Amino acid sequence: MTPETFPSQAIIEQTHELIRHYIHRTPVFTNSTINQQCGVEVYFKCENFQKIGAFKARGGINAVLSLQESERTNGITTHSSGNHAQAIAYAARQVGAKAYIVMPDNSPKVKINAVLGYGAEITFCPNTPEDREAAVQKIVAHTGATFIHPFNDYRVIAGQATAAKELLEQVEDTLDVLMAPVGGGGLLSGTALSAHYFSPTTEVIAGEPEGAADAILSFKSGQIERAPFVKTIADGLLTPLGDKTLAIIREHVKEILIVSDEEIVAAMRLLWERMKIVVEPSGAVPFAALMKHKDLFAGKKVGIVLTGGNVDLGKLPF
Amino acid sequence: MTPETFPSQAIIEQTHELIRHYIHRTPVFTNSTINQQCGVEVYFKCENFQKIGAFKARGGINAVLSLQESERTNGITTHSSGNHAQAIAYAARQVGAKAYIVMPDNSPKVKINAVLGYGAEITFCPNTPEDREAAVQKIVAHTGATFIHPFNDYRVIAGQATAAKELLEQVEDTLDVLMAPVGGGGLLSGTALSAHYFSPTTEVIAGEPEGAADAILSFKSGQIERAPFVKTIADGLLTPLGDKTLAIIREHVKEILIVSDEEIVAAMRLLWERMKIVVEPSGAVPFAALMKHKDLFAGKKVGIVLTGGNVDLGKLPF
Repeated sequence: MTPETFPSQAIIEQTHELIRHYIHRTPVFTNSTINQQCGVEVYFKCENFQKIGAFKARGGINAVLSLQESERTNGITTHSSGNHAQAIAYAARQVGAKAYIVMPDNSPKVKINAVLGYGAEITFCPNTPEDREAAVQKIVAHTGATFIHPFNDYRVIAGQATAAKELLEQVEDTLDVLMAPVGGGGLLSGTALSAHYFSPTTEVIAGEPEGAADAILSFKSGQIERAPFVKTIADGLLTPLGDKTLAIIREHVKEILIVSDEEIVAAMRLLWERMKIVVEPSGAVPFAALMKHKDLFAGKKVGIVLTGGNVDLGKLPF
Repeated sequence: MTPETFPSQAIIEQTHELIRHYIHRTPVFTNSTINQQCGVEVYFKCENFQKIGAFKARGGINAVLSLQESERTNGITTHSSGNHAQAIAYAARQVGAKAYIVMPDNSPKVKINAVLGYGAEITFCPNTPEDREAAVQKIVAHTGATFIHPFNDYRVIAGQATAAKELLEQVEDTLDVLMAPVGGGGLLSGTALSAHYFSPTTEVIAGEPEGAADAILSFKSGQIERAPFVKTIADGLLTPLGDKTLAIIREHVKEILIVSDEEIVAAMRLLWERMKIVVEPSGAVPFAALMKHKDLFAGKKVGIVLTGGNVDLGKLPF
């Protein structure tokens, strides 16, 4: 895991070319009230409008398209709290492969239904990293399916990197800061690589929920740490980092900011009310961090990846 | 009220030119799942992303910009269940005039706050047409403010017409059908005029809530009728038509379809879940009508004006 092994600029450019026809070039929204209220110029990359309702379509389709024909024959499997599950189910359908998805048994119903809608087979398991991995290993042993890790995979990371690459292309001025949430670190590491290659003066700052605050510990220690406790509304950010994502994040991310669930819900509500868009709690985490630390961002041009909009409308926190 | 007095094609073109810098050219969204589910090709004009969160910014700013300097001196007044209130408050602020807004006392809190946010003065009244008009007359007598009717005004109608004009410009193919909801008829009559001038083969079909079903009666009788009962979640569509809107609608609208509140909520929920956008109940009415009468629209290209996104997140119907 040295910078020499990270996906290169050329790899990210090729990835973008490869996946272009399977994903949306999502719009970038701005909002004058929010800018005024925060004293910042914010550019929101609306990945809630992405295929499957989240940026994970990018990494999923890239990983699946990168497989050899022989690697797809017995199907594809993964574990995910939801959006990567949908991404792999969607990607497998594009190439005509069978998808076996392991999901925690407390996954939002809307995500479960969407995975089923893409024709995938779901195996439920308790929501711990160990249980997820055990369930996947059983599927691999049983079916011979190829496993695609939800984030600790350079093909996935390169796919996620294309969201920030597009955002940098879509905003005329140079961004001072790029923000993304951090769970397993696939999006954050991809965002950091794109900033490094395509806009080297742009700093990358992450948001992380205090109820899954492992990345900030790992970022400091250089080891993969576990969160002191796991309890947050941001259900897409529960997992620890992987060795690949940690290495990139340590190299190219400036800072990780922690926010509470109350701050996440307030940020989410402001996005819904003012921008009229549906953003899931995980997607509101970086904006919550910006609102909490307005002084850090004062007068800056900030790009934020709004990661997804797959929220259970029957269980809203408002 | 004869076709000779209706706003002409040239008027609508000039209006669009006049208001261009004060409004957003809102995007048109499509959704493959919705198209599949309905067997229709739907183009959603996202006026929920418009200034003030609704299409009414168009008519409001056009009416205010069309006033003589002397007509603005003593301020501007209107009555509205919410979005026109915000539109006039917004427009008045643009020209530096004072706004006096009459709102029904059951208006959504989010709309009240927005009107206050634009620096307008609010007078509350019971939610009947008579009470609203009486309150406005009192303000006019007291302040000398100029009254701008929320819909029965050709300047307002010409402003609203620009939403459909843009939608027709933004969709490459010719639309078979254009849909809008009907309350007072400002948007519907503007939509019908734009279809007539800019895409004469496009049929205009409206959606109306069964809990405010006056327009369908007026459409048939040629008189301004009152609804048999007024009770609907679509709080932007409570008022009867005016003579100007009725005349245009009778001339250029093909049909008005009635939907129940359950159908409105289901349509609204589908838009939120699938398109990740916040649409208010009134805005979901035409799509509810389309979903109810799929056979009528089968295989057609349908444009729908999603009118607004100003919904109270604390009082959602899901």
